[in-house]
Amino acid sequence: MENSIAQLTDKLLASYQEVGAINHLDGQNLPSKRVIVRITQELLCLLFPGFFEERPLRADEVRTVTARRLRSVATALEREVYRSLVYMPPPEYPKKSLRQAARSITLGLLESLPRLREILRTDIEAAYNGDPAALSREEVILAYPFVETIAVQRLAHELYLAKVPLIPRMMTEWAHSRSGMDLHPGAQIGTHFFVDHCTGTVVGETAIIGNHVKMYQGVGLVARSLAAGQALKGQKRHPTIEDHVTIYAGATIMGGDTVVGAGSTIGANVFLTTSVPPRSLVIQKDANIRVMPKGERTRHEPDIQI
Amino acid sequence: MENSIAQLTDKLLASYQEVGAINHLDGQNLPSKRVIVRITQELLCLLFPGFFEERPLRADEVRTVTARRLRSVATALEREVYRSLVYMPPPEYPKKSLRQAARSITLGLLESLPRLREILRTDIEAAYNGDPAALSREEVILAYPFVETIAVQRLAHELYLAKVPLIPRMMTEWAHSRSGMDLHPGAQIGTHFFVDHCTGTVVGETAIIGNHVKMYQGVGLVARSLAAGQALKGQKRHPTIEDHVTIYAGATIMGGDTVVGAGSTIGANVFLTTSVPPRSLVIQKDANIRVMPKGERTRHEPDIQI
Amino acid sequence: MENSIAQLTDKLLASYQEVGAINHLDGQNLPSKRVIVRITQELLCLLFPGFFEERPLRADEVRTVTARRLRSVATALEREVYRSLVYMPPPEYPKKSLRQAARSITLGLLESLPRLREILRTDIEAAYNGDPAALSREEVILAYPFVETIAVQRLAHELYLAKVPLIPRMMTEWAHSRSGMDLHPGAQIGTHFFVDHCTGTVVGETAIIGNHVKMYQGVGLVARSLAAGQALKGQKRHPTIEDHVTIYAGATIMGGDTVVGAGSTIGANVFLTTSVPPRSLVIQKDANIRVMPKGERTRHEPDIQI
Repeated sequence: MENSIAQLTDKLLASYQEVGAINHLDGQNLPSKRVIVRITQELLCLLFPGFFEERPLRADEVRTVTARRLRSVATALEREVYRSLVYMPPPEYPKKSLRQAARSITLGLLESLPRLREILRTDIEAAYNGDPAALSREEVILAYPFVETIAVQRLAHELYLAKVPLIPRMMTEWAHSRSGMDLHPGAQIGTHFFVDHCTGTVVGETAIIGNHVKMYQGVGLVARSLAAGQALKGQKRHPTIEDHVTIYAGATIMGGDTVVGAGSTIGANVFLTTSVPPRSLVIQKDANIRVMPKGERTRHEPDIQI
Repeated sequence: MENSIAQLTDKLLASYQEVGAINHLDGQNLPSKRVIVRITQELLCLLFPGFFEERPLRADEVRTVTARRLRSVATALEREVYRSLVYMPPPEYPKKSLRQAARSITLGLLESLPRLREILRTDIEAAYNGDPAALSREEVILAYPFVETIAVQRLAHELYLAKVPLIPRMMTEWAHSRSGMDLHPGAQIGTHFFVDHCTGTVVGETAIIGNHVKMYQGVGLVARSLAAGQALKGQKRHPTIEDHVTIYAGATIMGGDTVVGAGSTIGANVFLTTSVPPRSLVIQKDANIRVMPKGERTRHEPDIQI
Repeated sequence: MENSIAQLTDKLLASYQEVGAINHLDGQNLPSKRVIVRITQELLCLLFPGFFEERPLRADEVRTVTARRLRSVATALEREVYRSLVYMPPPEYPKKSLRQAARSITLGLLESLPRLREILRTDIEAAYNGDPAALSREEVILAYPFVETIAVQRLAHELYLAKVPLIPRMMTEWAHSRSGMDLHPGAQIGTHFFVDHCTGTVVGETAIIGNHVKMYQGVGLVARSLAAGQALKGQKRHPTIEDHVTIYAGATIMGGDTVVGAGSTIGANVFLTTSVPPRSLVIQKDANIRVMPKGERTRHEPDIQI
């Protein structure tokens, strides 16, 4: 066996040399996946104090715990932001001053926390008010996957606006793996947002979502053909959803110039590729299903033998 | 940096004071998310002995291990149930006797384990018999996300019936984050249930599912308009699925008065909002897709540039 | 309380005796779920050196780390493969020589790693080139759930071809729980594969996917009626997708004899149950949605009160 291991090692090392693009062996400057997850979890604790702690948080220790946690996040995040700026320096920042940029971005994110808390409060209100199954706001925070995912997106969006590479997406993909909802850090999302059930819902990088928008599982705000791939970078590729719109499960809305007017409702499984005016109702036609007794299949539906 | 941390701490503490509803700083009585997850995992070990242990379980130690595990779950669950009852006392329990109620609910759940095992055996049979890709019942238990999710729902349903706040949903949302399937603890689910692939399937609080029902990924048993929100609490909002029904991937069935009659089959991606009689076949019409050579787009389909 | 625990233990032990098929109490020979996860994670580190480590990997320690990791995986995997062969010996291996078979299968998997790296490089290229939101190949590897899921499927497929019971599915179900994408270990998948967003996408056991295929979330390559259940084992039940096909979100393609010809595009939410020739465009007809001002519902759509 030991012989085989030696040979396997040689072959694998040769492959590390030859195959490009999937090695990172002098990786001092890539942010660490585990550290980003830990930072994200600590930021969630700062946003929702007392909810995600391992043990109950007493009121008289909140100051100490908060300061310690801010210090810990600040140190770790500054180092990871610096690594990501070194890895792929954005044109916005002079290459000489990346350390300063990392510090100022880090403080900027921490300073945004009170503002993000104001917005997240509206999301929790929307979740509680919109779901008759919700018992209380506490249940929404403790149990609903939506709260964690939107909180992470709003944090990541701050870093996205500050042009930090890698980290915003690493944060939202962690949330994605937990709730099944993929909110890109670039998406602009208004207040009082709520997505029920979450799984399978996708909101693309250039989507714009107004206030009081409610969506369900499996909704896609997606791009038209991406055949042009990287050439489309920077263009608005995803739809705009105006205020007070409801989008039911499984609906797909496509295209950067598609606008869903304020107050509209989009029915389940609808596939919409054009703009609709305010207060529209968009539904699948009854005509698209056929109900019949089993055994009375006609030759017109020969294919679906379900 | 230390100056900034002090200022950030002040601002965040001010925000904790001012922004209501997303703090829980005197949280002695909220159940702990981590403890609920640990309890749920131990309950799964009690239901499926020998499958989820860190090391193999020898037959001669089963009694000792089982007793120790029951004791551990009983102690932890009683404390968490008590916390959740104190947090939001259900009208069913006199406020003075919440400690007693917590103990009796906890013992009630543990006493239900043999009965739940009988039902879960039928689910595993249904999974094995219904999936040609399944090699054995052991593979189903070890590998299929469905087994964990339905077991957790059946456990949470017992606590839901006992009117325990918070904990049932915390349990099912843990399972949801792992399988992508969101089975509400309130749903009434018969024997021999199986959902293949699971991801994206949603079953609402007031859904009723008969025996021998088989579903696939992305199926929704959902409510009609929830615009009325909390005012709808307690009403039957989700459909009834009778015995021996099969529902294919992506089908949405909507509304509390919608009944899918026994023995029916609902095709993939169907959107059904009315009742259908027993032995119905409901499919999308062929008519709703169009197959054409690329490049031969007509002016009738100008919008979808995919 | 202690009395109740003793009684509960008796009842549960009685249930362990009586209820078949969901106990595994003399389980020396079942592979361990936790160990399979750890092996899978180590294999991912071997495939993408430097990306998933807890700390940065220095170039001068790569040989040592790689050899140690290969030894660790070899030992653990050989034991688990042996357990799974003993549990359900495939007809391909003489029962006397299962230890030898376990060793040779384990070495076979490790020998395949350089070849799998070549293929995975094409998947990462496809992801980077196909998604304008991707910043770099490093971001794709660090953040995209797709990379982990396809890597695990390609590893599991090797064990599937070697007729190892249980372990391949345990591996892919771990990946499924993380990305929401369920790629069966049996599926044959060509080079330059990419699935964006992943959640809800399902590829069945006997699906065949060509090179340069791109898919989105919620796509199903699924079987027709499985009412015959275990009797269908071994038959081709899932579709064939030829080279250079794109399949948009939520499309379901059904049936073992359904072939999507090379260069075709399948639109969002399409439900396709028949073959289409090369370079086809398959879309939902515009006709299947209806846009109207709210309040102007007619008696023809009386049911959907959304």
